[in-house]
Formats: sequence, structure tokens, C-alpha cells
Amino acid sequence: MVTQQDVADRAGVGRRTVSHVVTGFPHVSPEARERVLRAIDELGYVPNRAAQQLRTGRSGVIALSVPQIGVGYFGELGALLIEEAASRGLGLLIGQTLGSRDRESVEIERILALQPEGMILSPLGLTAADVEQIAARTPVTLIGEHFIGHDIPGVGESIVIDNVRGSLELVRHLAQSGRRRVAYVGMPAEVAPRFDALRREGTYAGRAAEGLEPVADLLTADYTWEEGYRVGREAAHRVAAGELDAVSCVTDEVAIGVMRALHDAGLRIPTDVAVAGSDGIPEGLRANPRLTTVAPDKVELARRAVAAVIGEPVPEGFVPHRVVLREST
Amino acid sequence: MVTQQDVADRAGVGRRTVSHVVTGFPHVSPEARERVLRAIDELGYVPNRAAQQLRTGRSGVIALSVPQIGVGYFGELGALLIEEAASRGLGLLIGQTLGSRDRESVEIERILALQPEGMILSPLGLTAADVEQIAARTPVTLIGEHFIGHDIPGVGESIVIDNVRGSLELVRHLAQSGRRRVAYVGMPAEVAPRFDALRREGTYAGRAAEGLEPVADLLTADYTWEEGYRVGREAAHRVAAGELDAVSCVTDEVAIGVMRALHDAGLRIPTDVAVAGSDGIPEGLRANPRLTTVAPDKVELARRAVAAVIGEPVPEGFVPHRVVLREST
Repeated sequence: MVTQQDVADRAGVGRRTVSHVVTGFPHVSPEARERVLRAIDELGYVPNRAAQQLRTGRSGVIALSVPQIGVGYFGELGALLIEEAASRGLGLLIGQTLGSRDRESVEIERILALQPEGMILSPLGLTAADVEQIAARTPVTLIGEHFIGHDIPGVGESIVIDNVRGSLELVRHLAQSGRRRVAYVGMPAEVAPRFDALRREGTYAGRAAEGLEPVADLLTADYTWEEGYRVGREAAHRVAAGELDAVSCVTDEVAIGVMRALHDAGLRIPTDVAVAGSDGIPEGLRANPRLTTVAPDKVELARRAVAAVIGEPVPEGFVPHRVVLREST
Repeated sequence: MVTQQDVADRAGVGRRTVSHVVTGFPHVSPEARERVLRAIDELGYVPNRAAQQLRTGRSGVIALSVPQIGVGYFGELGALLIEEAASRGLGLLIGQTLGSRDRESVEIERILALQPEGMILSPLGLTAADVEQIAARTPVTLIGEHFIGHDIPGVGESIVIDNVRGSLELVRHLAQSGRRRVAYVGMPAEVAPRFDALRREGTYAGRAAEGLEPVADLLTADYTWEEGYRVGREAAHRVAAGELDAVSCVTDEVAIGVMRALHDAGLRIPTDVAVAGSDGIPEGLRANPRLTTVAPDKVELARRAVAAVIGEPVPEGFVPHRVVLREST
């Protein structure tokens, strides 16, 4: 049985340094780390993680729970969170909840049983009481807008961008480039999740601030490309009727579907109608035309989420965002 | 301190059932599981994972190491692997290696230190000796084509589709719909990774089988949309010169870039030129026109990968694929 001392001897470092390397402690010089890893390899040392965990109380992983990891926004964010966690020597355990409260509960219970050092949570169906219960068992950091304004004991502020401001800035840009009739595209206000409601609010506020007339919303049933396409056909009729000259879409995926429908209806973007989205997903950069969007600083979002969940200080307030102007407006 | 026995009493089940639920043992009835989880919630029981791991030798997680989780193919596959693992009560720990051997080594070392019960690996830079060393420390299952034909001690066959056959079938379909000059789009043969080489081989074999004339390849520098677009402009000239009437692209992402360039050059797809890809990524379904592709059965791929890594029997041979015919051909 190879011990940490054997590894230390072979690597020519102290046992403490070996321990730091295998527990993922960040402050080890690259050279020492390299020597230790080589010695581990040469000796076939297997760190006893379970014993470590009992001793240190650390599992070396944090958990991420999101609705879906395979879609644009969460795929990119997941990748950044893995990088952020790795830079602190932590693994990222990913659960996907598919958005319903039942599924979220089961999935989160399963991940909690693995005793992560904390959990980054993007809930859609959970109640504040659910989250409070989870936070009693592991540090919780919320990303996404679901619990904005809720004060959940043991849980800090949600890490989010200022969606109202982002959507308002987008309308300002549209107004300054000559648009007068900006429609909002999203789910009906009565059922829309919080992020959708905030983006609608910002769009309305932007219209008011710029002296634009109110325009009836275009209503989607969900946030898929397909619903964007369906609603885009409706938008095409309203553009032709002179009822609108720009659409501000709840997400980029919806906006890309809208653009395709407008294009298929023979309309020119942005000449006949401007289209904008929100989220800054990579697909918007490939769309034709390239999509104007409100993009959160996802690197900073990931940095804050990981920092918060492991108890490091995190700047207060919103994560920065940018209105990224591209060809579609 | 709440014990497993307390939970068992409250749930009205045996202590063994509680243990099975918290260790993620799959054969527990949904009703019993539900009762146990409710009792855990009510009593605030925290299973001592570290003690469990010491006792059972099981960490409850398997690891996935892929080049990038935020791109189409691995995003979708990652999501399916999470589901597969979850269905067996296992967490999925994701590492991303960005493809270089150095980065792969560091990242894999870090994940190994968490003592996963096994690792699903999609390497690009690692050598067979590297993988053999990893396999000495945890069960390894390979996905992807990098080690096809290598016999690595302790590691089973790579879980892959029959890329040669898929590309051949694609050319057959192109030939049957009247195409005579099918160009392959991928990295130069000297430097192409294995999956690219196999797809080229299948394209060539298909042309030979269908009696089509050889056509010079179109060469990309990588597998991005941007390189697809660049090469697509070249393709447009060659289509105009009558040198080719179809392109078989190494990946969907490249194919989508090629389509955009052909479209921008005023060519009609598929009237003037047919375009096909490989991978079956969701974006191909949204492309205009919708992209014909060789799609692996990713659900089956994920099922086999998880089964293999935890030592369940896995069917021999290739994972099934389908040539999915869409508007682009």
C-alpha cells in the first residue's frame, strides 16, 4: 500500500504538499504539483477519497442543477462552470431537472445524497420552502430569476443580470435606429416565468421612455425555435399590415425561429423589420442575419456562482450584460 | 443525530431499504423510495456519504471527460449520459479537456482524485499508454474513434457507430438521387483525427461502389462553422465550374457553415448542390434547408457507455446509426 509519505519522498516535497495536491487545494506551485502528480503516477498511489472526505468534510465536488444541459444557454454556462470549478480543484456534478417541481425534487435529492460542498441551482418549479430545505443541507446559490425578491433563509441573492434594464436598452437602440413599433415576443404574462416577465417589463419601459406607442405582444407557448417560427409567421402579417417594425424576443432561440419565418415570408431583416433576442447564445452569431441580443457576461456569472457557493465574497448587484448589436437590427 | 434506523422506522421499511435508497441501488420500488425520501426530508437525515464510500467502496458518481460540453454533439450526449447515470442512481461528474494531451492529463487526474466508479472518456490527444494507466485506477469506457483498433489492456472496445458504413450509405443516397460528383469536406488526411479519416474512407468507398468519379476534397482547418463557411465559398466556385454537385461534410456544424456560404453565393440547395453532414445535432433540424445527416443512436450510445463503465453487459459491435434524409439533399 503506497502512502502519501511515499509519494512525498519520491517527489521531494513535504507530505502536506501531497495532501494539498490530492485534495485540490489551489495554492500549490505548478512545479511541485507536477512532481507530485508524476510521483503518484509512478507509484500508483490511490488517494483514499472517502477517508479524506471523512477527515476534511469535503467531497471535492459542487453540484449544478439546471433544467437542461444540452441547450444553448445552459450548455455554454455549464462549460464555464466546469472551468470555474476546475480552477479551484473542484469537480462539477451536473443534474438536469427538466423544469418540473417533481422532477427537480427527485433529482436534487439524488445529488444531495452525494454530499456536494454546495449546489448551484436554477429552479423553475421549486417553491421557496423547497429551496430553504435544500439550503439546510448544503450551501445553495441560485442562478436565474425564479426567486428574485424572495428572501429565503440561508440563501443569498440570486445571481442574475438586470433583465429589465437590458430589454430597455435594447428598445432604446431600436428607437434610435428609427423603429417606432416594437412588439414583445414571449409567453402570456399570466403564465410567463419570471425572466420572461422582467424582459417584457423592460421592453414596455423602453417604449415608454422613448415615446414609442404600445404594440400588442406576440404570444408563444414555450421557448422553442418552433414556437418562434410559428409566432414569426404571425409577425410577418403584422409587419405587412404596418402594425410593427421591430420585435424584441424573450430568448435568442425564439428570435432565431422568428427570423426564419420572417425570411420565409419574403421580408428583409432588418430593412422591413428588426429582430432582437436575449441570452447571447452561440447560435445567434451563426444566424443569418447575425442576431442582436442582450448577452449576460457568462464568465462573470459562472465566477460569481462558484465563488458564492463555496463561501468566497461575491460582488453585490447584477452581473453585467451587454446589448450586442449585430446585423438583425 | 438521525440514523438510518430512524428513517426506516418512520418510513415503515427495513433499514436495508433505506440504505439502498441513499446509495442509489436501483432495485427499490418507487413507493418504498418515495416513503424513504419523505422520511429523510421529515427527519432531516443526512446520509454520511464518506462513511458509505469507505464501507461500500462506491462513490456514487461516474465521470465523463469530453473535449467540450458546450457544443452541439457533446451537449446532447452529455444530457443523455446524465439521464442514463441518474436512472442507475449515479451522479455524472463532467470534465472537459479541450482536446490537448496536456490538458486532458491534468483534467483527468483531477477527476480521478474524486474516485469515480468509472470514467467515460472521449480522448483526442491521449496515448494508448496514458489510457492504460488511467484504466489501472478506475474502469474506463472509451467513446469516440480515437482508439479504434488499439487493444488497450483492461479497456474494452470503443463505443462507436460504423462511420465508414454511414458515410457510404450517405453517398449511396446521393447517387440514387442523381448526384455524380460528391466532394468530401474535412481536415487534410495527414492530420485528420480518426473519425474524420473514417468518414472520408466511407465517402470514397461509396463513390467507388456507386461508380461515381473521384472528386478532390475540400479541406478545413478545424470543425467550426466558420471553417465550413470558408470552405463553402470555395465549394460555390467549384459548383459553378461544374466540378461537383454534392458535398458530404465531416460534421453537421461544418455542413451548416457550408450551406450558408452556398446560399450566400446564390446557389440553391439541393437543386444546384446537395449538402449532407454527420452527427445529427439539433441545429441541423433548424437549418434552412434542414440538413441530411448520419445520426448515431445517441440514446443507445449513452446507454452502452454507462452500462459498460459500471460493468453491465453491453451488446457487441457498432451502435446503430441512421441516415436521416432531410431537405438539403
